Amino acid sequence: MLEPTVAAIRPLDEAAMAAARELQGRLTKPAGSLGALEPLSVRLAGLAGTCPPPLPDRAAVAIFAGDHGVHAQGVTPWPQEVTAQMIGNFLAGGAVVNTFARQAGASVTVVDVGVATPLSVTPADPAARAADPVGPPVLSADVVATPADPDGPRLVMANVRAGTRDMTVTAALTRDEARAAVETGIRVADELIADGAGILLTGDMGIGNTTPAAALVAAFTGVDAAEATGRGTGVDDGTYARKVEVVRAALARHAPDPADPLGVLAAVGGLEHAALAGLILGAAARRVPVLLDGVIAVSAALAAAAFAPDAVDAMVAGHRSAEPGATAALRHLGLDPLIDLGLRLGEGTGALLALPVVTGAVRVLHEVATFDSAGVAEK
Amino acid sequence: MLEPTVAAIRPLDEAAMAAARELQGRLTKPAGSLGALEPLSVRLAGLAGTCPPPLPDRAAVAIFAGDHGVHAQGVTPWPQEVTAQMIGNFLAGGAVVNTFARQAGASVTVVDVGVATPLSVTPADPAARAADPVGPPVLSADVVATPADPDGPRLVMANVRAGTRDMTVTAALTRDEARAAVETGIRVADELIADGAGILLTGDMGIGNTTPAAALVAAFTGVDAAEATGRGTGVDDGTYARKVEVVRAALARHAPDPADPLGVLAAVGGLEHAALAGLILGAAARRVPVLLDGVIAVSAALAAAAFAPDAVDAMVAGHRSAEPGATAALRHLGLDPLIDLGLRLGEGTGALLALPVVTGAVRVLHEVATFDSAGVAEK
Repeated sequence: MLEPTVAAIRPLDEAAMAAARELQGRLTKPAGSLGALEPLSVRLAGLAGTCPPPLPDRAAVAIFAGDHGVHAQGVTPWPQEVTAQMIGNFLAGGAVVNTFARQAGASVTVVDVGVATPLSVTPADPAARAADPVGPPVLSADVVATPADPDGPRLVMANVRAGTRDMTVTAALTRDEARAAVETGIRVADELIADGAGILLTGDMGIGNTTPAAALVAAFTGVDAAEATGRGTGVDDGTYARKVEVVRAALARHAPDPADPLGVLAAVGGLEHAALAGLILGAAARRVPVLLDGVIAVSAALAAAAFAPDAVDAMVAGHRSAEPGATAALRHLGLDPLIDLGLRLGEGTGALLALPVVTGAVRVLHEVATFDSAGVAEK
Repeated sequence: MLEPTVAAIRPLDEAAMAAARELQGRLTKPAGSLGALEPLSVRLAGLAGTCPPPLPDRAAVAIFAGDHGVHAQGVTPWPQEVTAQMIGNFLAGGAVVNTFARQAGASVTVVDVGVATPLSVTPADPAARAADPVGPPVLSADVVATPADPDGPRLVMANVRAGTRDMTVTAALTRDEARAAVETGIRVADELIADGAGILLTGDMGIGNTTPAAALVAAFTGVDAAEATGRGTGVDDGTYARKVEVVRAALARHAPDPADPLGVLAAVGGLEHAALAGLILGAAARRVPVLLDGVIAVSAALAAAAFAPDAVDAMVAGHRSAEPGATAALRHLGLDPLIDLGLRLGEGTGALLALPVVTGAVRVLHEVATFDSAGVAEK
C-alpha cells in the first residue's frame, strides 16, 4: 500500500496555477494585496488541477495517539497514562482540539495507533474484527463512535503495538511495525477523503512524543540534537538537558539514513509520527491539502517528503510551534507557517486555528468580483 | 459626546483577570501551551469584568470610507472615484471583505463619512433626514439597506464633508469636522453594540488613505516620515519618494502636537481615520473588544490611545500590515498582531482573518474540561 501511494504523488498542475494567477489579477483588490494568501490559492489550484480549487470544506482532524518507550528515560514529567486519559477527553469533547474543531466545523477522528494503556472501549463491529484478527486494521469495522453523539468524535482502533521500544536501547519499531503505522495513516486519509473531507488536518497525542520528533528532525535535516530539541510541554532545565542527551544518544546508536525514511521512523520515530507521515502521503496522492499542526506533524512531514518530495506541494504549514525543531523542519520543507502565536499544545490545535485562513484564500477565488464585473476602475 | 466617552474608559478588571488566569491553569493542557491566546483570554476577561468573558459573537465590521485632498499630490495611481465604486462593490457583496465576513459570520456596515463622489443611493428614511438636515447624523434614519438582502451589507450616510483638504496646503479638516467624524465613529459603535455586536472590527476604504495614515503614525510615534510611509497598494519608486516628501511636508507645515489628538486628526488625518478613532473609543467605553485591521486602523488607534490611554486594553491587533507604519504604530501601542501574512488590502480583511483566533481564545475558557472534571492526571 505504501509504494503505490508514493508512486501516485505527482507535481502540481501548471495550467490550473496559471489560471489562478490570472484570476487573482482581475479581482477587485490591488495585485498582491492578499499577501501569502495569493500564492497559497495558486498552489491549491495546482494541487486540485482546477481553478478555482474546491473549497476545503468538511475539514477532518485525525489525531494519531501513541506511547513511547523513551518515556522511561525521564524526558517528561507527565505520566504515560495521560495519553489514554486524553483520548477519553477527546471522545468526551473536552479538549482544546474539540473546542477549536467545533468552532471550525471540523470532524475529529482519534486513531489509537500505539497507545500503551488499554483503552476501555469496544469496537463498533467486534464480529468483523474477530473475523480478521491478524490482518491489517479494518478501519470502518474498528470505528468506535462516541455513544452520546454519532456525529461527535470517533475512535479508530488500529493499535500496531502498545507503545514503541526505548530508542536509546534498541530501535523504537521494526520496519514492519513502522510500515503498518504508515499504512494505517494512508488508510485513514483514504477513508476520510472518501467520506467527503476536502482538507485533512494533522493531530497527535502521545506523552513524550516531542523526543522522537526531535530525533526525526535531526535525522532528516541534519541539525544538531540541541537545535532540534525543545521543552515540549514545559520541562525544567535538568529534564531538558537529559532530553537533548537522549536524542543525541539515539541518533549516535542508530545513525539513521535520511534517504531511508522507513528506517528512520523505525529507529527513532513514534507510531503516531509514522501514521502522520502516511496520512500526509495519502492526502497528497489524492490531491487533497493537508494542514500541518506543530512539531510532531512537521517531523512526520519530513518523513513524508523523504518518501515523495512532491508531497510537500500538498502540505500547508498551519502554525509555527514554539518547539525549535518545528522551525528547523519548516525551513527544510520550504514552508512558511500561517500562524505564529507561540502555541505548543499539539492535538491539531494550531492547524485548526489556521483553517479559516486556508478556506479564505480559496473562497476569494470563488466569490470576489472582478474589476470588470463590479464596474471598478483600475489604476 | 467625545468627552463623556473618553471619561467612561476605565482600566481592566483585575479580579476577572485573576479568575481567568486561575481557570487557564486548571484546563486540560500544559500551562502556557496556548501561547498568545492565554494572555488574550485573560485581557478580554478583564475588559468584560467577568470570567469567562462573553463569546465575541455577532461580530460587526464597520468600514469607514473617505476621500483625501492630498490625492492631488499624486500619491497613488488609483483614481479617487474608486472609493465610491468600491462602496458599490461592498454593498453588492463582491469585495474581499464581504467574502471574509460571510465566512466569519460577521455583519458589514459601510459608513460614508467623507466620500468625495456623490453616492447614488437614497437614505432609508428621507423624511427623518430632511427633518434634521444640519444636525448630527441620525444613523438609524440614515441607514440604506441593500435592496436585495436586508441582512446583507448596510450603508450609513454620515458624510461630514466631501473629502479632506490637501494637507500639504492647509489643515485637512477643521477641529469641528474632525470632531464630527470622531463622534460618528462613537455613534456607530454605540448602535452596533446596542444591536448585539460582541466585537467590533475596523474597516476602511479611501483611495490615498495610507498617506494621512503615515502622517498620523509619524505625528503620534515620532518616527521619521520615511519609516512611517509605505507603498500602499503598490506604488512605484517615484510615487513612493513623492509620498514620503508629502508626509514630511505636511508634518513640517502643521507641527502637530501628539498630546492634542483632535488637532493631529484635523491637521493631517482623514475622515475615516477620525471615525475609526471614535469607533475604538466607543467600543472601549462600552468594554467591547475592537479588532484592528491594518495601517489605517492602527494609525487611528494611536489617536484613540492619545484621547484615552486605557482604550488600548480594548484593542486586539488583528494583523501586521505590510505597511511599515503599521509596525511602528503597533510597537508604540504595545500590541502584538495575531496574523502576519503580508496583507495590505485594508477593508477589514486582516481583522476578519484574525477573528477566529480571538473567538477561539475565549471559547477555550467556556468549553475546555479541567483536569479534575476529565479525570486526567497532572505532571
